[in-house]
Amino acid sequence: MKFSFKNDYSEGCHPQILESLLRNNLDQQAGYGEDDYSKKAKDLIKAKIENDEAEVYFVSGGTQANLIVISSILRPYQCVISASTGHILNNETGAIEATGHKILSIEKEDGKLCPEDIIPVLESHQNIPHQVMPKLVYISNSTELGTIYTKKELENLSAFCKKNNLYLFMDGARLGHALTSEINDLELKDIAELTDIFYLGGTKNGALLGEVIIVTENDLRHDFAFNIKQKGALLAKGRLLGIQFLELMKEDLYFYLAKNANQQAMKIKNALSERGVGFLSDTSTNQIFPILSNKIIEVLSKKFEFYIWKKMDENSSAIRLITSWNTQNEPVEEFIKTFNSEL
Amino acid sequence: MKFSFKNDYSEGCHPQILESLLRNNLDQQAGYGEDDYSKKAKDLIKAKIENDEAEVYFVSGGTQANLIVISSILRPYQCVISASTGHILNNETGAIEATGHKILSIEKEDGKLCPEDIIPVLESHQNIPHQVMPKLVYISNSTELGTIYTKKELENLSAFCKKNNLYLFMDGARLGHALTSEINDLELKDIAELTDIFYLGGTKNGALLGEVIIVTENDLRHDFAFNIKQKGALLAKGRLLGIQFLELMKEDLYFYLAKNANQQAMKIKNALSERGVGFLSDTSTNQIFPILSNKIIEVLSKKFEFYIWKKMDENSSAIRLITSWNTQNEPVEEFIKTFNSEL
Amino acid sequence: MKFSFKNDYSEGCHPQILESLLRNNLDQQAGYGEDDYSKKAKDLIKAKIENDEAEVYFVSGGTQANLIVISSILRPYQCVISASTGHILNNETGAIEATGHKILSIEKEDGKLCPEDIIPVLESHQNIPHQVMPKLVYISNSTELGTIYTKKELENLSAFCKKNNLYLFMDGARLGHALTSEINDLELKDIAELTDIFYLGGTKNGALLGEVIIVTENDLRHDFAFNIKQKGALLAKGRLLGIQFLELMKEDLYFYLAKNANQQAMKIKNALSERGVGFLSDTSTNQIFPILSNKIIEVLSKKFEFYIWKKMDENSSAIRLITSWNTQNEPVEEFIKTFNSEL
Amino acid sequence: MKFSFKNDYSEGCHPQILESLLRNNLDQQAGYGEDDYSKKAKDLIKAKIENDEAEVYFVSGGTQANLIVISSILRPYQCVISASTGHILNNETGAIEATGHKILSIEKEDGKLCPEDIIPVLESHQNIPHQVMPKLVYISNSTELGTIYTKKELENLSAFCKKNNLYLFMDGARLGHALTSEINDLELKDIAELTDIFYLGGTKNGALLGEVIIVTENDLRHDFAFNIKQKGALLAKGRLLGIQFLELMKEDLYFYLAKNANQQAMKIKNALSERGVGFLSDTSTNQIFPILSNKIIEVLSKKFEFYIWKKMDENSSAIRLITSWNTQNEPVEEFIKTFNSEL
Repeated sequence: MKFSFKNDYSEGCHPQILESLLRNNLDQQAGYGEDDYSKKAKDLIKAKIENDEAEVYFVSGGTQANLIVISSILRPYQCVISASTGHILNNETGAIEATGHKILSIEKEDGKLCPEDIIPVLESHQNIPHQVMPKLVYISNSTELGTIYTKKELENLSAFCKKNNLYLFMDGARLGHALTSEINDLELKDIAELTDIFYLGGTKNGALLGEVIIVTENDLRHDFAFNIKQKGALLAKGRLLGIQFLELMKEDLYFYLAKNANQQAMKIKNALSERGVGFLSDTSTNQIFPILSNKIIEVLSKKFEFYIWKKMDENSSAIRLITSWNTQNEPVEEFIKTFNSEL
Repeated sequence: MKFSFKNDYSEGCHPQILESLLRNNLDQQAGYGEDDYSKKAKDLIKAKIENDEAEVYFVSGGTQANLIVISSILRPYQCVISASTGHILNNETGAIEATGHKILSIEKEDGKLCPEDIIPVLESHQNIPHQVMPKLVYISNSTELGTIYTKKELENLSAFCKKNNLYLFMDGARLGHALTSEINDLELKDIAELTDIFYLGGTKNGALLGEVIIVTENDLRHDFAFNIKQKGALLAKGRLLGIQFLELMKEDLYFYLAKNANQQAMKIKNALSERGVGFLSDTSTNQIFPILSNKIIEVLSKKFEFYIWKKMDENSSAIRLITSWNTQNEPVEEFIKTFNSEL
Repeated sequence: MKFSFKNDYSEGCHPQILESLLRNNLDQQAGYGEDDYSKKAKDLIKAKIENDEAEVYFVSGGTQANLIVISSILRPYQCVISASTGHILNNETGAIEATGHKILSIEKEDGKLCPEDIIPVLESHQNIPHQVMPKLVYISNSTELGTIYTKKELENLSAFCKKNNLYLFMDGARLGHALTSEINDLELKDIAELTDIFYLGGTKNGALLGEVIIVTENDLRHDFAFNIKQKGALLAKGRLLGIQFLELMKEDLYFYLAKNANQQAMKIKNALSERGVGFLSDTSTNQIFPILSNKIIEVLSKKFEFYIWKKMDENSSAIRLITSWNTQNEPVEEFIKTFNSEL
Repeated sequence: MKFSFKNDYSEGCHPQILESLLRNNLDQQAGYGEDDYSKKAKDLIKAKIENDEAEVYFVSGGTQANLIVISSILRPYQCVISASTGHILNNETGAIEATGHKILSIEKEDGKLCPEDIIPVLESHQNIPHQVMPKLVYISNSTELGTIYTKKELENLSAFCKKNNLYLFMDGARLGHALTSEINDLELKDIAELTDIFYLGGTKNGALLGEVIIVTENDLRHDFAFNIKQKGALLAKGRLLGIQFLELMKEDLYFYLAKNANQQAMKIKNALSERGVGFLSDTSTNQIFPILSNKIIEVLSKKFEFYIWKKMDENSSAIRLITSWNTQNEPVEEFIKTFNSEL
């Protein structure tokens, strides 16, 4: 079996989660998220963001979180603004449009949006009522390219959105990785303050499944549960999500796991950089996109699985390597060794 | 803690499932249902229904299964026919309508549809194009009232649907309970032959979550996966569903668990019947609806949790008791003892 | 050619409208409802309801008006309450559900809703978040059965809706007929005050096409135009609607035409009543539903077109007769004469 | 009053249409498109395209036609491909997305699509089921930039679509102008043969309102009427559309009117070209986009209304001039004279 660097959801979950599921398995609990574990996990999260008024919901996955959040917020004629790399644009089978909403795409190399990107979109959508009304800015952190927002960047974007009557929504499928990047200066609490709504991904950071949607904006906090049920996202055994996030949150296991993923990726990044390898995107999280010669790619492919991300020229391509909460030293070192031996 | 007869999803899952999750936890697998466990579980299910051509999909819950199936099948102007007790009508927050489709409701005391119920609906929907076009018949087995279809009934309904160009869809959230009822004469294979599409529920029969959608009708088999992804139902760690159904199916654990639930319910039913108690609905599965005096209900409520289903008159109500795969003899005997002691 | 009592849209439009279209035909005007005629017509309507703050929009037809209004108002998980006779329930090909919203139906013989009808619906929709949230009450005046609301009835319903946080929406496809019925005690101004949003039908009262949506509720007034455009209802030559409603409104031609329709219907009603004929519904507008022997129906059918509405028994049926703004004395008298000659 | 070159829907309709409406006004006819005029108009159109099997429907406007066609054809997970200039992308308030479908945009300067444009879109949408499935190619003729397709171009595109299992849909809001352009080599019959579905615009070519949807593809011909009704597009007085298209079609008035619009635009184009003016797009229909100095634009603005389409540099902009079926020599000559006097 080759070791896979294809994604961060190749393995099951952190063993501590399975132990807790086993320990609490036969305890009778109320259904649909009204169980004690979910309540405790929600309280823990509200404490971490220091906001008792926030609403916290658990759902199963990222596409589900995105479509529920967006369809809950927007009126029929309102639309989303996203960087062209946005997951909702390219990899969710039109899930957002299926709920009736257009996504306006902004070309960005690094996957991050700033006010200057959004201004021309607002300016070109003034032909009322013949055009959709931009109302929600969708960002991801870390982005689909592994990049992250700085505190300053997020503050600017947040202020711009407020001023322009736009909601700011952060897709945090890999928020743990962003917040534990070595160059990060944001805290979870900042995210809660600077966005109107965001989610915190479990699926890609050690849970079997699960994302936590956190709603802080006042007008959005009401009636959110109806949409979760309507979209088929309310698990009868909500305990499955509650137990997992209780384990992940209670002693910051969540951040510990993300940090491991980042560190393993950075080991490879640094080793390759030292040898003069360039990267498609300057990342500090668990995704790296080294540009390698086809010959080296072929050799690495014999021992490892990964995606060839982008053909650069006749002789080289960028590959994508993703490390996970469970990536150990061994395959990382083996990868570096294989690479070095081929130079 | 009171023992709860409120539903069949109060506990976690059968321990064998957790053991398998633990055993296979760190095995790297492809995502999105392309893992080996899911493939094996699908093969096992296709073998059980003796249909290699069927398409098998795993999703997380019943509302999700219902909305994906119905929105995948129907054209915008087509609608669903359901008994008035149908789960899609009353308890799914308008999930079906949210995908654009009307549900025509037929009043039925026992929750079961037969051709004679449907004929007048077809007759009253002939004002083309001013009315929706009935195209899919939604039934559940066991029904929301605990009743089940006989083979003869399902054959009649199936033939009627074929003749009238209607698709027949069975909600099998509790299909295990139906197929292991002491009065059942249907097999899983019959269900696959007599319906166009159906699902087999795991959530209410010992899984942490999960329903298996099985598509047998030729025109419906294509492109189903797109809808599953679009509706946010494709789990990144599809292995979670694959491992569970592999355990449930490989030695008929699924049916064994359902049978236990039925038997425990029947014990209570028989004990109460002997004492002259009447029931709202004549059930043979894991739901029973005894009509009791308010006084007895009050006493039972001190030891057990259950829903008061329907007020019958000033002095009595029907309650709903649900047993599960995990209901043991002890609470059942205690319930009967408590009841008897109050007579 | 037989004379048709089938509906009130068999003819073209009142000649005064065509004259105005001809007179103003080559005048260049702004598109999409920004023309002078539309502005004047809107001002006239706002003056008539004595509400300068109201928003007034013109659309082409009733189904279009209904689907725009309802989809503009409701959040995804909210639903409509309607009498079982509601046009949106039976005769609009699922147009409302196609925008994502369920309609809860209340059985009513006379097609009118009162608070007592709605209370049990609210009470049975408390299982949050598993059920849709009732949010908008849809009524029609005159109803699909030709009946009308009294001022007292509408005041009660309006107060009830306000108290229960429900919007009240009146389908006024035949509001002209309601307001000119001989037993009516409501004015157009009352309708504007007692509902949150309503429309005034032109198609069934002398226009080529067109309904006026009038929004008075504060929260609903904003951004309505976007939905009109999005649903394909914003005519490039909005002047076509503006010119028509200007003609219909400027000297109360609209009410004059509706009154004629009512009076012709009442002539037939009275003539038949005198001869002991019973009616399916006690109407005072331009729709009547006399119950006649099949033998008489057969004779009348040779000279007149009308719908057989409902079979009453082996020997008799209720028919529906509709008179229009253009129904003259001659066919009405001929109908009565033919009827009398057959007794 | 300034003369307006802003669009081709500033005036009412061709007088012959009003005369016919007047002549037939009081004739009683069946509603909802079942009138004799609509039937005759449909027969005439089927004769013109030499296809008796085609289905012909009348609707009110272009956005309505687009949303009905697209939502009728596509399954939930299928999407549209359009040039970046497509009307559905920019000027219909998200009408297509509101029916649940994504539009993939292809950047094109001239507004026209060819197979080479589409191939990379198909290639980049192979990640099944994570991406939408391209299924329908939307083109307009003439395009939003006034350009037209040659027969060869349309044949190539048509063959490509067939080969790739894509439907080809032509937005013909200005199809009359395309087919009467001096450089056109397509006939209406060719359009019917080379597309699967298209519409022929009346609103922008002399009608009060109305577009004719013509369905030739076999699988699409069925049940289309349901969608027209469901989307609120079925006029009760369908005669209004039938009478208009009967007049426009019966002696080719439709093409005569379009030709006039083209010729008037070409007069201006030629006069300006002679003086060395450049154009944003090389058009042969009733839209021209001359690039003028701001100084000249200011002078012209005093006598004429038109849109400033695009700022080219500090000193010049492209303006859009649209001529119509009713544009006479006088304003055209006056425009040219004013322009010349400023050189």
